[in-house]
Amino acid sequence: MKNLGIVGASGAVGREMIKVLERRQFPIAGLKLLATERSAGKKIQWAGQDIVVEKLTANSFAGLDVVLFSAGSDVSREYAPLAVKAGCVVADNSSAFRADSRVPLVVPEINPGDIRLHRGIIANPNCTTAITLMALYPLHRAFGVTKIFASSYQAVSGSGAKGVSELLRQAGNLFYTGVTDIRMYPYQILYNVIPRVDSFLPDGYTREEMKMQSEGRKIMHHPFFRASVTCVRVPVFRSHSVAVSAEFERPVTAQAARKVLRRTPGLDVVDDPDRDRYPVPLNAAEKDNCQVGRIRQDCALDNGICFWVCGDQLLKGAALNAVQIVELL
Amino acid sequence: MKNLGIVGASGAVGREMIKVLERRQFPIAGLKLLATERSAGKKIQWAGQDIVVEKLTANSFAGLDVVLFSAGSDVSREYAPLAVKAGCVVADNSSAFRADSRVPLVVPEINPGDIRLHRGIIANPNCTTAITLMALYPLHRAFGVTKIFASSYQAVSGSGAKGVSELLRQAGNLFYTGVTDIRMYPYQILYNVIPRVDSFLPDGYTREEMKMQSEGRKIMHHPFFRASVTCVRVPVFRSHSVAVSAEFERPVTAQAARKVLRRTPGLDVVDDPDRDRYPVPLNAAEKDNCQVGRIRQDCALDNGICFWVCGDQLLKGAALNAVQIVELL
Repeated sequence: MKNLGIVGASGAVGREMIKVLERRQFPIAGLKLLATERSAGKKIQWAGQDIVVEKLTANSFAGLDVVLFSAGSDVSREYAPLAVKAGCVVADNSSAFRADSRVPLVVPEINPGDIRLHRGIIANPNCTTAITLMALYPLHRAFGVTKIFASSYQAVSGSGAKGVSELLRQAGNLFYTGVTDIRMYPYQILYNVIPRVDSFLPDGYTREEMKMQSEGRKIMHHPFFRASVTCVRVPVFRSHSVAVSAEFERPVTAQAARKVLRRTPGLDVVDDPDRDRYPVPLNAAEKDNCQVGRIRQDCALDNGICFWVCGDQLLKGAALNAVQIVELL
Repeated sequence: MKNLGIVGASGAVGREMIKVLERRQFPIAGLKLLATERSAGKKIQWAGQDIVVEKLTANSFAGLDVVLFSAGSDVSREYAPLAVKAGCVVADNSSAFRADSRVPLVVPEINPGDIRLHRGIIANPNCTTAITLMALYPLHRAFGVTKIFASSYQAVSGSGAKGVSELLRQAGNLFYTGVTDIRMYPYQILYNVIPRVDSFLPDGYTREEMKMQSEGRKIMHHPFFRASVTCVRVPVFRSHSVAVSAEFERPVTAQAARKVLRRTPGLDVVDDPDRDRYPVPLNAAEKDNCQVGRIRQDCALDNGICFWVCGDQLLKGAALNAVQIVELL
């Protein structure tokens, strides 16, 4: 039985963490919900009772064993080391420590052993990367991936609760007044798609796009993995989708790939085009398992496979993966 | 001055054809609007007067010089040869004749000379292909494309007026009743994306996906061009978007690619990430020019460029391109 803290408890991911802990009956002695000043005082249901969200301070971590962070990189950078100093193990959902060579970056189905190397902090990967790797890694083990070309279709809840509000408000406005306003994304997201997720780097890629390569290399222990990615926000509330072309060292057929993917834990193969069965984000929402389909031989690569993977980015891309990490501890 | 006929005049593309002809002040002696039985009798505005849509029959083409077809492949296959026999030149928007080696497949900015080879029918390319090639072809001329990896974000109007109705109805239903129904696409399209456009082939690709390679080869006169494509329907009313990674024979930089694209007719470069300027489908809608941005060196290819192109698929992908073909005649 552990004393658990959640930083960012009232956010989109934080609320999912609470639900996942409850659903998986994680053995909790005490639960402390923490947030920045703005959200402190809110009440959140846990196991039939209301827990008041407390304001995060340097002294919040006394008596806790494990703390889940999901309140952005700045909060993690400031407070995660304090939690470690107070004797806690931290599972951090932000990007603050993912590139730090002393911090393991873990998808429990892929590199659970890396957890053992932790010095207090374990990083949770980027959501789009985690969902893509759920299908890519088993293929890599079987056929040796060299590079991928991927395009994402990312849900607004990937931007947190404010992304959901933006899409809902634009839909409501348009319906009631015939016009809509833009508050959060650079362009209207309703009935539009926006080829920008996270901020731009000098080379023209976004940070989100480069995470696939940098985090993919670290998680798969594959320093030569290359990933050319375009990340796009779409008017979907929940679940990211990714279209992937992957090149392998060894020959691979769609049938062989499907066989490998069918025996992968955490992944459902939904792939029967004749009956219109393939993953769509609406069907992947609120499911622990990611879904993969549209598996076919890549027609532009000699040893290539195309696939389409959907996953609830609040679950496998965030809350579920973080709780799985804590379960492994 | 030409006597012009439009088959499929009341459809999404047919209506755009009428608008484009009017806007470009195409010299028309007479305009005959034709449609299948279901739409015959409808009235459509043209130059300030109402024209009644007539029922398409084998005898509809007498006295016409040019006929634009946009009523699906079956109608084109049956009636386009009859129009040719009646002495007309046909610009066909369907896929019926695109693969026919005796029929030129033309994007006027790319292969206008091919029109001269026609024997009565000129085919208009697939919308996603035409929009992608508007940016890809000038890069091919400069650097020699070998292959591309592309993912599309296709608007519902690509399925015709019924696609627009489906998205509108689902939005209205959800708002008024809290539930929505599915009539046309295999899944709900509102707040969802569907990785299927057109029907499936035995190898797991859709027909739409393979058009990029087959039509791209023909239009670019490049028989070894390879294209690995995933086509996805998104809840956008108008304008398709495509994320492309392209590999070239010769070295290429983002700067050199941008320079080539800036001097391409029919294409606007919208590419200033620091000021959040890149194409989005809402901004490309109802514009003749396609828009390209997110131009960057591909990080998984040695001689590669990534770009993001948006275009109004009812215009450049269909009606505009067809009228441009007729203008060239």
